[in-house]
Amino acid sequence: MESIHTDSGDIRHGNEGGNEMAMKKKPVTGMKDILPREMAIRDYVMDMIKKTYKQFGFTSVETPCVEHIENLSSKQGGENEKLIFKILKRGDKLASAIETVSLDDVNVLVDGGLRYDLTVPLSRYYANHANDLPSPFKALQMGNVWRADRPQRGRYRQFMQCDIDILGEPSILAEIELITATTTLLGKVGFSDFTIRLNNRKMLKAMAAYSGFSEDDYDSVFITLDKMDKIGMDGVAEELVSQGYPKENVDKYLELFKTVSSDIEGVRYLGETLGTYLDADVASDLETIMTSVEAAKSADFKIVFDPTLVRGMSYYTGPIFEISMDEFGGSVGGGGRYDEMIGRFTGQDTPACGFSIGFERIVMLLLEREDYEILGNAEKKAYLIEKNMPTDRMTDILKKAKAERETGMQVNVVMMKKNKKFQKEQMEKEGYTSFEEFFVK
Amino acid sequence: MESIHTDSGDIRHGNEGGNEMAMKKKPVTGMKDILPREMAIRDYVMDMIKKTYKQFGFTSVETPCVEHIENLSSKQGGENEKLIFKILKRGDKLASAIETVSLDDVNVLVDGGLRYDLTVPLSRYYANHANDLPSPFKALQMGNVWRADRPQRGRYRQFMQCDIDILGEPSILAEIELITATTTLLGKVGFSDFTIRLNNRKMLKAMAAYSGFSEDDYDSVFITLDKMDKIGMDGVAEELVSQGYPKENVDKYLELFKTVSSDIEGVRYLGETLGTYLDADVASDLETIMTSVEAAKSADFKIVFDPTLVRGMSYYTGPIFEISMDEFGGSVGGGGRYDEMIGRFTGQDTPACGFSIGFERIVMLLLEREDYEILGNAEKKAYLIEKNMPTDRMTDILKKAKAERETGMQVNVVMMKKNKKFQKEQMEKEGYTSFEEFFVK
Repeated sequence: MESIHTDSGDIRHGNEGGNEMAMKKKPVTGMKDILPREMAIRDYVMDMIKKTYKQFGFTSVETPCVEHIENLSSKQGGENEKLIFKILKRGDKLASAIETVSLDDVNVLVDGGLRYDLTVPLSRYYANHANDLPSPFKALQMGNVWRADRPQRGRYRQFMQCDIDILGEPSILAEIELITATTTLLGKVGFSDFTIRLNNRKMLKAMAAYSGFSEDDYDSVFITLDKMDKIGMDGVAEELVSQGYPKENVDKYLELFKTVSSDIEGVRYLGETLGTYLDADVASDLETIMTSVEAAKSADFKIVFDPTLVRGMSYYTGPIFEISMDEFGGSVGGGGRYDEMIGRFTGQDTPACGFSIGFERIVMLLLEREDYEILGNAEKKAYLIEKNMPTDRMTDILKKAKAERETGMQVNVVMMKKNKKFQKEQMEKEGYTSFEEFFVK
Repeated sequence: MESIHTDSGDIRHGNEGGNEMAMKKKPVTGMKDILPREMAIRDYVMDMIKKTYKQFGFTSVETPCVEHIENLSSKQGGENEKLIFKILKRGDKLASAIETVSLDDVNVLVDGGLRYDLTVPLSRYYANHANDLPSPFKALQMGNVWRADRPQRGRYRQFMQCDIDILGEPSILAEIELITATTTLLGKVGFSDFTIRLNNRKMLKAMAAYSGFSEDDYDSVFITLDKMDKIGMDGVAEELVSQGYPKENVDKYLELFKTVSSDIEGVRYLGETLGTYLDADVASDLETIMTSVEAAKSADFKIVFDPTLVRGMSYYTGPIFEISMDEFGGSVGGGGRYDEMIGRFTGQDTPACGFSIGFERIVMLLLEREDYEILGNAEKKAYLIEKNMPTDRMTDILKKAKAERETGMQVNVVMMKKNKKFQKEQMEKEGYTSFEEFFVK
């Protein structure tokens, strides 16, 4: 270290080559340090997730945070593929890449990237290990994912995802178990009055077909439909007409949405109206999902049919669902069936269905509840030790701490400060409720 | 997807540009997918870590996995700095970097890297947030780190680290609490008969000074000393002499090691022998650490004085320690005092001491115990449901599952397979001990 001087909050020091390189105190752009209060809530929610999902027969799995750049660029990830943090090659491969790199072919420099979701890695994992895994396989994944999004309030470039997936189960038992497990968890961490919105990609498509749209136009139509909650029924109609779709089709399409109710009657109505446009079991399956989830629910929520629910990811093939919460103006989780993704790795389609909760949003909502109580927290006690405590006395104190910890108590042994009153006040803010003082005398 | 054919286990498909890009089933080189059995042990150990360390007053913190490249290249990380996975810049910054990049200045392409340890990020975190943190601050960190090491059996390029650190505590209460907490944890997850080896960087230096070595030679002498357990006393003597150090110094140095015992007597003996070469309190502090840890221990281990313990990282400034286990031929954890690192960020030295356990090694050792029992595991029960169960019967089954889960039981609801006997046998291997069957009849 050749020289130290302060510069905009950072310390600079000479490095090997004599260049100055700043030691930076802030985290990298768009990512965050997690402070103890938030961390306590995260730890609590993670613990509840593991406990709850295990009760439903899910087992934890983990994949590396770094994924092959080929797998991340396979078009499964939609827009997320534009947001990959890419990992530079190393050694000889990097040397030869640098000789050929051009602005048009930057990817020659990289061989991996940070995963942008947990679904693509899980599909790779299942393709790689299916012979060693039970069938159906009920997987629980909690892990960080990374997206180089434009930094904005409340959205970070590294965030935790928490997914449960059932692989190898073609029946709607998968959907029912996923929704029941997820809603049970939400109830346990303290949420109520939320709504599960349910739809099916096949219902979406049948409604469009019935109204006269051609299959090539579905994606475009659904993008507009997805704006229903923002621009309303009339807004959707206007936008579709302005995009050149025949008014006749648009009217017929929107008439469906006007007529349908959000309960089981709505599902039945569409089942009858759409007739041969809809696979025979789509409506009855939706009905069974709604009835079963309602019957087995252990939290205070409702499940509704929402024919306007689109879900962005194009890989969904069947039922899709999303969690809405009034206290949060948007989705706090969602999922659906994606029966064709694992086939991309294995050549053989495998039924798959998953539900992802918005872990960061849930933590944010709990953090905002000033009085949020973490259940089962042990009593926190502090021992304050006067300076220069003789060794024999010190060992007695440590033995006492050991005995109290063995009863399940949290005991923090710290040196007594000159301003003992202030020290205790500070510790009370951290949740310490009792103090014991030890003097040399 | 334009074409699919199998090629060395991967599926290839056309991508946007018409190039073929393989979907790869294996994880990236040197990193691993974690299968359910290992994951169950990892979850259990992580849970015990959090519970145990919290009882000692440690609070969880987390930093981003991506760190500023400047912080990772500050020479705090020693050899690890050569093993960084670097993150490519994005957008305009990447474009201009590509125009100027050369083989001699590859770093112009990157702005971040994956952290290679948790100590550098913790120091940055503390420097950034000290005003919002208690003093002393007792931090618990569990997180992945990455090193682009040559892949080899049992060593991976992504691995979990688990560190506890006490920042802002200058007294040896920090060392005592760290060692007591770590050994308590090891006992709880099922280890015994291990050894904590203890030394002090100041003791190392005083022994070298006393023997006539000059300060410039310490690092080189310690590298040789560190080989003691491999090449023995004579091997160390030979190597030092062959490196040109005076035989007189080498003899005097090794005589110290021959005479000293590994108990408190050994510490006292060196304290007396080294006289003014050693700071007055180094020996008495080591003695107090040994006495206190021994008195407050809640696991079956011993703590010994080991004057040959070096620890590689040059940032240590005081006591250093390492865990040895006979069943593993090496260290399963270590740590020490590093009072000068936080000052690299803030310009002001802050006392700091940490203990890192070798999480991956501990998990590996537990995995090898075929009969390793995870304490407190709930009973695992499976419901087998015959196909085409009517909705009303299904809801009754789901209500029953709900009631059993509420008692704490794990209930996995799955569809009955044609070969029910085989299905049950497979589930028994996963730990399911009871089955209930539901027929349509």
